[in-house]
This record gives sequence, C-alpha cells and structure tokens, in this order.
Amino acid sequence: MSDSKRYTAIHYHSYLELDKLLSAQVPRSGQFEDKPAHDETLFIIMHQVYELWFKQIIHEIDSISDMFREHVINEENMNMGVLRLKRISEILELVIKQIFVMETLTPLDFLDFRNYLFPASGFQSIQFRVIESMLGLREEDRLTYNGHSYKVVFTEEQQDRLTKIEEGGSLFELVEEWLERIPFLESKNYDFLNEYQAAVQKMLDREKNAIEATEYLTPKMKAMRLKMLGGTNTYFKQVLSEEEHNRLIEKGELRLSYKATLAALQINLYREKPILTTPYNFLMELMNIDELLTTWRYRHAQMVMRMIGNKVGTGGSSGHDYLAATAEKHKIFKDFHNISSLLIPRSDLPELPDDIEKELSFHYSQSKK
Amino acid sequence: MSDSKRYTAIHYHSYLELDKLLSAQVPRSGQFEDKPAHDETLFIIMHQVYELWFKQIIHEIDSISDMFREHVINEENMNMGVLRLKRISEILELVIKQIFVMETLTPLDFLDFRNYLFPASGFQSIQFRVIESMLGLREEDRLTYNGHSYKVVFTEEQQDRLTKIEEGGSLFELVEEWLERIPFLESKNYDFLNEYQAAVQKMLDREKNAIEATEYLTPKMKAMRLKMLGGTNTYFKQVLSEEEHNRLIEKGELRLSYKATLAALQINLYREKPILTTPYNFLMELMNIDELLTTWRYRHAQMVMRMIGNKVGTGGSSGHDYLAATAEKHKIFKDFHNISSLLIPRSDLPELPDDIEKELSFHYSQSKK
Amino acid sequence: MSDSKRYTAIHYHSYLELDKLLSAQVPRSGQFEDKPAHDETLFIIMHQVYELWFKQIIHEIDSISDMFREHVINEENMNMGVLRLKRISEILELVIKQIFVMETLTPLDFLDFRNYLFPASGFQSIQFRVIESMLGLREEDRLTYNGHSYKVVFTEEQQDRLTKIEEGGSLFELVEEWLERIPFLESKNYDFLNEYQAAVQKMLDREKNAIEATEYLTPKMKAMRLKMLGGTNTYFKQVLSEEEHNRLIEKGELRLSYKATLAALQINLYREKPILTTPYNFLMELMNIDELLTTWRYRHAQMVMRMIGNKVGTGGSSGHDYLAATAEKHKIFKDFHNISSLLIPRSDLPELPDDIEKELSFHYSQSKK
Amino acid sequence: MSDSKRYTAIHYHSYLELDKLLSAQVPRSGQFEDKPAHDETLFIIMHQVYELWFKQIIHEIDSISDMFREHVINEENMNMGVLRLKRISEILELVIKQIFVMETLTPLDFLDFRNYLFPASGFQSIQFRVIESMLGLREEDRLTYNGHSYKVVFTEEQQDRLTKIEEGGSLFELVEEWLERIPFLESKNYDFLNEYQAAVQKMLDREKNAIEATEYLTPKMKAMRLKMLGGTNTYFKQVLSEEEHNRLIEKGELRLSYKATLAALQINLYREKPILTTPYNFLMELMNIDELLTTWRYRHAQMVMRMIGNKVGTGGSSGHDYLAATAEKHKIFKDFHNISSLLIPRSDLPELPDDIEKELSFHYSQSKK
Repeated sequence: MSDSKRYTAIHYHSYLELDKLLSAQVPRSGQFEDKPAHDETLFIIMHQVYELWFKQIIHEIDSISDMFREHVINEENMNMGVLRLKRISEILELVIKQIFVMETLTPLDFLDFRNYLFPASGFQSIQFRVIESMLGLREEDRLTYNGHSYKVVFTEEQQDRLTKIEEGGSLFELVEEWLERIPFLESKNYDFLNEYQAAVQKMLDREKNAIEATEYLTPKMKAMRLKMLGGTNTYFKQVLSEEEHNRLIEKGELRLSYKATLAALQINLYREKPILTTPYNFLMELMNIDELLTTWRYRHAQMVMRMIGNKVGTGGSSGHDYLAATAEKHKIFKDFHNISSLLIPRSDLPELPDDIEKELSFHYSQSKK
Repeated sequence: MSDSKRYTAIHYHSYLELDKLLSAQVPRSGQFEDKPAHDETLFIIMHQVYELWFKQIIHEIDSISDMFREHVINEENMNMGVLRLKRISEILELVIKQIFVMETLTPLDFLDFRNYLFPASGFQSIQFRVIESMLGLREEDRLTYNGHSYKVVFTEEQQDRLTKIEEGGSLFELVEEWLERIPFLESKNYDFLNEYQAAVQKMLDREKNAIEATEYLTPKMKAMRLKMLGGTNTYFKQVLSEEEHNRLIEKGELRLSYKATLAALQINLYREKPILTTPYNFLMELMNIDELLTTWRYRHAQMVMRMIGNKVGTGGSSGHDYLAATAEKHKIFKDFHNISSLLIPRSDLPELPDDIEKELSFHYSQSKK
Repeated sequence: MSDSKRYTAIHYHSYLELDKLLSAQVPRSGQFEDKPAHDETLFIIMHQVYELWFKQIIHEIDSISDMFREHVINEENMNMGVLRLKRISEILELVIKQIFVMETLTPLDFLDFRNYLFPASGFQSIQFRVIESMLGLREEDRLTYNGHSYKVVFTEEQQDRLTKIEEGGSLFELVEEWLERIPFLESKNYDFLNEYQAAVQKMLDREKNAIEATEYLTPKMKAMRLKMLGGTNTYFKQVLSEEEHNRLIEKGELRLSYKATLAALQINLYREKPILTTPYNFLMELMNIDELLTTWRYRHAQMVMRMIGNKVGTGGSSGHDYLAATAEKHKIFKDFHNISSLLIPRSDLPELPDDIEKELSFHYSQSKK
Repeated sequence: MSDSKRYTAIHYHSYLELDKLLSAQVPRSGQFEDKPAHDETLFIIMHQVYELWFKQIIHEIDSISDMFREHVINEENMNMGVLRLKRISEILELVIKQIFVMETLTPLDFLDFRNYLFPASGFQSIQFRVIESMLGLREEDRLTYNGHSYKVVFTEEQQDRLTKIEEGGSLFELVEEWLERIPFLESKNYDFLNEYQAAVQKMLDREKNAIEATEYLTPKMKAMRLKMLGGTNTYFKQVLSEEEHNRLIEKGELRLSYKATLAALQINLYREKPILTTPYNFLMELMNIDELLTTWRYRHAQMVMRMIGNKVGTGGSSGHDYLAATAEKHKIFKDFHNISSLLIPRSDLPELPDDIEKELSFHYSQSKK
C-alpha cells in the first residue's frame, strides 16, 4: 500500500460519521403532538450515550478475554489488561455521573412524553446484559423478571447472543482458570497452608486475649465480642479446608474454585513481590468494576424513584425495587471481595524461602544481589 | 468600636488555628510500635475531614430550621434556605467522592493498625447522628444496633443531645408545619381534589385503552400490564381519601400529614407559578440531600466490604450488612419522593381560576397586564 | 388521532436507532492495517459522545434564546431558562470529566493510528463553534487560526451557518436587551446611582483609614496597599460614569451596555427580593457555563500536552498553546463576572423606598402585610 | 509490651481529638459584630480541610522521597511509591472538586466578613508552598510577589523550612538521580541512540511524503504543514545531541539532565517490559500530579474571579491574574510531559537484543521459556 493512499485527507465530520450520528434522534412525541416534547431529546441522547459507552466497554472486555484465552498469559499483556480494566472503570464513573444530567429531567416534564415510549425501557438494552454476561453473571445469578427469564424482552437473535456468552468463557471463568494455573503454590520447600493456619491462630488468640483484658468492656459486651470473633474464625475454614470450601460452593455461597481462591489469597498477601504486582492490580480492578456497576445500578434505582416514585417503569418492571434488588444481587466478583476477610497482618505472614523469593523477582535485580 | 481595632492584621496561620489543627493527628500505632503505621495518618485525617464537614452541615441545618421556626417564612429567607440546602448537597457530593481516597488504603495496610483502634468506629460519630436527627430521622426509624438503641455507643451527655433533638422541631416537622399553613388550598372558587380526581381518572382510562389496543402484547402480557395499572391506581387513594392516608400513616407506610401532602402535591404540579418556584426548589433540595445521604451510606458499605469483607467492623458492627441496611431504611424525606407517583401530565392539569392565578404571581407583572 | 396509534409498542432498540448508532464507528486504521488499532474505537466513541452532548446543548440554548426573543419574558419561562442552563452545566461537567477517559489513551497507543487521521481534528467540530457563537462569542473575540479566520476549516455551508448566527441574536445580546428593558431603575423616588456612589465612598474611606491604622504594616506596605485601593477605586468609575463606561467599551475592555450593566448590578445587590431571585439565578448560571467552558478548554489543552507534547495537533494547530490561549481569551460573559468587583457590603446598601419594595414582591405576601 | 496495653479501649471521639478539632473554628466577624457572619464558618472550614489534606500530601511525599534517597530502590518500594502518588492524585481531585463548595459562597455574602480577614490569605499557606518545593519547584521557577520573594509573607521559621527544602533533595532531583543510575542504557550490544535516530528519520520522511502526496492540500497549506513538520524535527535534537540538550538547559527551556531524559524516553518506549511497567507508572503519576496541581491553581483563579472580580485579594495579591499566571508557570514535571513529543510509533521501534530483553523480564517466566 502506498503512503499517499494512507494519507488521503479526512475530515472530522465524515470520520465520525456525524451525519448519521446526529440524525438518529427522533422524538416519538413529535409523531403525536404538534411539537415534540422539549425534553425527549435529552432522554434519547442520554440513552444513546450510554449505548456508545457500552459498546466501548464490550470492546475492552473482548480484548481482555482474548488475552486470557491464550494458555500462557504474556506478562506484557497482563499489564495491558490492567490498563483496559481501568479504562472501563473511568467510563463507569462517567456513566454514573451522567445520572446527574438525567436528574435535570423532572418527573412532570417526563410525563410529557413517557406514554409514547411504552414499553421501551432500559431493561431492553442488550449491550448492558452482554456486559454483565461477558464479565461472568450467569442466568441463575440474575433476578427473574416478573417470573420470567430476563431474556424475554429480547429478540430471538439477541437471546442467542446472550446464551452463547453464558455457555462459557466469561471473564470470571477465564480468570479462575488462570489463577488455577499459577504454579508457585506447588513449591516443595514451602507449605503455605500450614504457615497460614498458624498465623491465623496466632492472630485470633491475640484478639481473644485482648478482648478479655479490656477493662472498658462489660462482661456482656465481652461475650458479644468473643462470639463475633468466633464468627470471624469460621471465615478461615473456607481456606483451611477444601471440603468446607466445596460445601459452600454447593450451597451457592461461594463460586470461585478452591485452587483459584488460594492463588488469589496469596496474590493479595504477597502483592509487593514484583511478579505479583500486576496480577494484584488486575484483581483489584475487577473488584473496582464490580463495585462501580453496583453503584450504577443503585444510583439508577434512586433516579427511577425520583422520576416515577414506586410506579411501574416504562418497561413494565416494578421500577425502583427491581433495580435496587439487582444492585445487591448482581455482583460478579464478590469472591474476590471476600478475600479481604481472609487477610492477616503483614507481620504474621510466613517468610518465603529463598527459592520462591527469587522466582517472584526480576531477573535483573536478582543477578545484582 | 474603632475601625483600627477591626482591622488588626491577622495571619492565615493563626486565623485558621493551624497549630491546633495540625497537631491533632496522633497515630495510635505509634504508641505500640517503633514507628507509626504509615497509613494511619490517612485514616485519621479522612475522619477529621468528615467531622469538619459534618460541623458545617449542622451549622447550615441549624440556620434553616431557625427560619422555619418563625411563623411567617419570609420569601427572602426561603430562597436563602434553598441556597444553604444546595451547599449541603455540594458538601455531601464531596464527602461521597472522598471514599475514593479512603479506598487507596488497602485491606492489608489497614491491618497494620486496625487492632489498635478497637472499638473506635464511625458508628461513634455523634455529629453524623445529629445531622440525621435534625433532618428528621426518629429513633423508631433507625436500625437497632445488635438489639440495642443506636445511642448505646455515646456518652450520657451525647445521648441527651440526641434525645433533645428527637423531641421535636426536626426539619421534617418544620417543613410539614409550613406546608400545612400554606393557605391557597382554601380558595372557594377552586376545588383542587375534584379536578385532580377527574384528571387521574382520565389518565388511567387512557392508559387502559392503550394497553388493550396494543397488538404487540399477548393476552397474558396485557393482563399483567392491566394489573400493574390497577396497582398504580391504588397510589392515588392516599391523596383522594384522607382516611386512606391516615390509615397508611398508622401502618407506618407514610409519615407526612394529609394536609401537608396535598400542599406538596400542588407545589409540584404548579411549580412554574412564580410564588411556587422557590418552595418547589426547596422540596427538591430536601430530596436531593436524602438521596445523597443514602448514596453516602451505600458507598460507605461498599468500602467497608472492600476493606474487611464481611468481618465485624472496629465498632463491633456487622459492617457491610448493617451499613447497606441503613442505606435502604434511613430515608427521611421519602414522602416527598412519593409525590412523583401522584403526578399527572401537565395537559391534564386543571386550569386555575384567575383569582388564584393572580395570588401566585408577582405584584409587578400583574399590574402590567 | 386515536389512542391506539399513540400507543403502538416500540422497542428500546429501534426507538434509539441503535442499529444506525452502533454501526457508525469505522476505525480508519482498519483500512490500512491488518487489524484496526485497538484504541481507535475509543477515540471515535469519545468524540461521538462529545458531539451528541453538543447537539443537546444547542437544543437547550435554542429554546432559551426563543424565550428571550419574546418582548415580555414570562416569569414562568425565566425559571425554565434557569433549569435549562443548569442542565447545560451538568452536561459540561460531564464532558470535562470525560477527559479522564481520554487520558487512558497513552501517547504511544495514540501513535498507532494518529497518522491516519490527518488532518481531522476537534478544531473541525462545527457544533462546538455553533455553541460558542450562539452564546455570544464573536468572530473578533476569537483567536485566529494560523493567521486565518477560524472558519477556514469548515465547508461553505457550515461557514454560512456560523455567519448567520454571528449576525445577531446571540444569547449575550438577548440577555443584554432584556436587562435594558427592566424598568425598575426608572422609579422617581429612588436615585440608585447617588445612593450607590455614597456607599462606595463610605466603603473606600473605611478601608483607607483601616490601612493607615494598622500597626502591623510598614510604611512601604501601607503605600502599596493604598495604591492598590486607589486602583480598586477606578473600578467603580465604569458604573458611576456612563462616558467612562462607553470609553471602556470602545477600547474593547467592556462589552455589556451601560444600561444593562446597571440592571445587572442591581440584580446582584438586591437578589433576595422575590422578583429578582430568578433573574439573579439566571445570570449566575450564565457565568457558570462560561467558567465550565473555560475549564473544558483548559483541561483539553492539558490533555493535548500529555498526548503529543508541544507538537502540532492532527489539525495542524499548534496544539496545547492554541487551546490554552482560547481558554483565557474565549470568555463570553466576563462582564457579568466583573460585577463582583462592583459589589458593596450589604450593610452599606441603600434602603429601598416602599413603592419599589412592593413592586419587587409577590402579590400574595404583600396583601397580607 | 503487654497485649492488654495494646488494646486499651479508645473512643472515636478522643482518637480523632474531636474536642480540639471542632473548637478551632473562630469566626473573626464574631469579634466585631453582634453575630458572626453566617458564611464565615464555611470559609474557615474550607481552608482547614485544605490544610489537613496538605498535611497528608506532605506525609506521602516525605515517604516517597525517603525511598528514593536509598541508593538501590527496592522494586517493592517502587510500586508502593506509585500507590502513594495515586493517593495524592485522589486527594488533589477532591481538593479541586471542593471549589464547587467554595462557590456556594456568593460575592455578596463574602463581603459580610471579607474586611475582617485582612491580610490573611491563602498565599500564606506554608504547607502548600512546602508541597511545591518538596516536589521540585525552585525559588527561580516561581512568580515573584509584587516584586518580592514569595517567602516574604512567612515568618522567619517558616522561611527557613522552605529554604532547607529548596537546598536539595526535592522529588524532582531524586527521580532525576534514579533515572541517571538506571544501567540498561550501557549494554554494548545495543546502541539505542543510533536505532532511535534511524526510526525518527524514517517517520519524518514518511510524514513529509504524505503531506506532499495529499491532493486535498493547497500548495500554501502544504508549505505550512512542511514547515510545522520541520519544527517538529527540531524537537528530536534535544535527544540526539547532548550539546543541544545542555544548551536548552542553560537557556532554561529544559531542566532534566540528558542522561535522565534518555532513560525516561526508554521507559516510555519500552513500558510493556515487565521491569519497566512500574517505573513507567511512576513517571505517569508524577505528570498526573503536576496536571492536577495546575488544574487546582486554575480553578482557584476562576473562583477568585467569581468572588472578587479583578480586585486585589485579601493578601494584597492581584488575585485572579496572579493565580492564573502560576497555573501556567509553576509546572514541575514538564520535562516528562515533553517526552510525548519524542515518541515514535511502536512499529518503528528498534528490536531489543535477547540479552536486554531477558534483563527486563521476570526470573520466573524466563526460566520457563
């Protein structure tokens, strides 16, 4: 190809297909009233902007998933993955802030065109569902929709797209498989579980003694605190016993496999080791995205409440309550959040043997020591 | 007083009492370890900043409540009230954004000093509780705290401060009384309720017909939609019947008195009339603050989840779950949010008779007509 | 029209024209390389979102300008104007925040497709220029573009659109005319200028005495402060003398007419009077928008610096420097910002005579007094 | 030390020294008027919050500088450094957003207490100056203050604190020294400069051909573009010639040493190599902080303009203009921003020889290949 072809001049306007883009706002109230409702334009543009961002998010998740589909994840790609997850987070922050713009549409102004939209609704955004599914939300994790599958509002083609994604290869699964492949757990000089168990015990004993020695507390409060500590204790069982872990998976309280959980725990505990820094950042960003999606759903629920109170939404949903419920239920990476419960103070952490320490470091700095 | 006294030079440093302010950060880990944990400073400053903002919010609520305590609320003050509520909103937005700073403290770094804080906790912030109570949250609206009153974590003096606020004169009550005093409902040329009832009926009939005429819908979906519409219908009863309204108050589903609800509804429906613009803005800002407080609690719950998982908090609370529950439960102005369910399209609004129209306008513009 | 037509079911997907919208992203690198550069999608979507928001902003300015084109501005419309300006501000805040998303595109990744864009550039956004012109930026207020009119980058048709807007009826001009029409300055019982002049003199004398009486200051510092105060004094001439004001307009230092300036000053000084509250809010929002546009240009300049350093932009502009210069120069409502220099303490404000006080109030509250 | 001592119960209230903190707001207007001006509390708290955040920022810079003072920078520390810089960025974003709260104070309300503050001013914030100096702003980089050193507004003790910081060891200098120590430039198998020069030449030739081959451009526009490209060419001299680089340092146009600049350039070009990822992130965060500080100064200038117009500030400064000028001038890490001008497309990047490639990777992944 010649360079001259390459540099054919292009104008901003045609590059961005602005004629197409800026003619895609057709207020429906304009078809039934003398003049379209002024605020319907905002309503349309708001949602179009959402959909453009959703397309970008899908583009990023796609590229990250592709990286994880290769058996050996290139270190360079890993860092690229972190940067792309961060971009998703920035977009989600923006999308959350956008609700402030939506809230300049007052309930009374919304009534000027609300009737014409029926039953169009944000529930019918296929791209948002695709994002959730690509990240790892399964059909069984979702709220049903008036007793039906969430898919009923989509066309057959769209349903197929969702089903195909749900059939496997979500980012959750790809990350889980990658964690399971991480080999450093297998070193023979180092029994992580034993060391960890001892450290947990030490920490719990210390806390128990502390509660008993605190003059400030009444016997009743001490008992309460000790009971809570006992409750805390139970958290660690899911790490210390593979059976317990699998039992909790069966009960639906956990999702991440035992092996992957151990790897994620170690990445958290030894995150300062050079080779673990980027993986740690990756897991953090996944949690970030989960948190931002939850915030988005929650703020969205608030906005619906402000707009139509507890009435049914344009899509026939029960509005606020449904959305508020998804905020609590549609969490994808909560097993990674749970890791926080399993951490122990740095000073109680087992020392790493030299061979492992070396494996976790750079070639360069090692050779200089 | 002489002007020279007035203008005694003052330095920024002493004006802001910076020696006092900047010596108030005493990391507790420094008393037990060779070196204080690096991140404890952040933890202290984060919370001190919260408390400074809380003081400012209390200052604003105090001044607004004072305005409403006067029987005749000066129009000029009303607008001042709106501006001060907006200031509170700006502060709350800031305080919510501050959680991003808190989240730079990782769970592992937090473990370096978490033990030394026991049982100090944000639950012990008297100022936050004062804000909630001044706005109108009552003891019975609150979650109990492991079966005890939320007040158990405070000193006797602090408990008295809270009790005194709860005894009456919260902003909710003051606003309710002001709404009840608004006289325009009493005009003899204008039966608001009759007009409103007719408009509601017209709207519901139209929607019912539309559902039935929609080819797109299966009979099953039509039935579902009609049932939902019927459900919607029940919303209006709380306005159309004072008995129904009082019954819902008794059941704890509503709080705002019937008379005040009617006034708030009219302010919403006729918000463009000059005399109602500022009152409408005032009610909007109250809802805004409620929404931002809810968001704050919710983001706070997320942050706790990230920091300690589902473990008990430093204050012995059950952490995330408690906070997430307060986000749903501790809503103060939800009766005003409910008004949205009761709105009807502008085009269905009853015409106002001339005498009322005049009452709602400016002296000046009237005289020119 | 029958209700059944009105309620033809519509799907979210077709309502938003998503097929059209989501097929409008055509990475140019894909035409010259085996695979499009991953980040070009972001670049396209970023700018498409900007253009959607610009369309919305134009929609709002259009509707506000229409209101001001009617000789008598309805009070109800005035408040609607405030709300629509606020919406523009919310959108601008979002658009500024969007730069954080853009900054996830690193300079090196941008190089992967930068060459293919030549000379497409944000400078070629006709909608952004339209916004500036509709608000009131004139050709002579603008930086030239490498010695040419800023219009050279547009097609003839686009240039005509801009020229027509510049020929008159910008929001600046409409607001100026409205201010000039405000009649309350003409009351015979009240000579605003005399009262104001006396108050200014009183304030300046007090400040002069205070400087001289301050022991803290060295003689040299006193002289400096007094000279500064003298400098301050000159600000007031533009209000106190119509000739001086017109001279400053001639010199290009001021733009707003003398009569409109006096009206704006009074709106600021008596903003608590009910009839002036909404006009005051309107002027505040205009300044807000000016400030946000300035911030946007400035942040944009920073982003360009980060992306390509001081290199020329894709549009052949000198990049950062050009943009940073527009941030300082392209201010539209700075005459309204200047009003702040002309304010005097509330306690020095002249009392209003009863007849004017009454004119500024509501019919209703007056009649009760 | 016994554990019981460790766990002495502590209350949130005393831990945060709230009695001290919340008694440090003394409105000065209260000393001269019957009632303090309502908004002075906001003014005080706003600035106190700033100072608390400044303390935190100093705490972070201090700890990062300490890491860089050790000759060998531990890889683990390097990542810690990135996280602490990110925390500073989050705080700066918050501090910028806080200006929206300040802007709820109207010019007229500010006049109610402005006179009493004289000459206290934000210019007298020693902590802000300390932050700038610790990062690397030198006395000669600063705007003078009415012809005097910026230090004149501080006490002798404070001036000494600033002078001591300026005498050496700013973060700029520490980072420069660290960059100079990075050894990979010295590999004998790899002449970076030669490779880079060839790649630059190739890129420039390609762009020149493209301009000449573009039919769209008039001869005049071609000449302009070619001249601009020529201008671009000159940028590369600062890398390709050490003499040119040193000449630019002498002229004050550059600050970073030649050796450090080469290292920074390579970190940018090869940022995906595992060993360079964290250093790259570190340099990015420095630029981020510079950008946020600039935004802060700029928004602050806007806020002053809104508050007092072009009048002199309470500190005798010329207000808006001074602040706007510092925004442009007080940039600390602009040499790192300049690196963007020196980048070349990834595809033109010279291949790295195997030995260097290995040095830049992890021990672990290498051994598996």
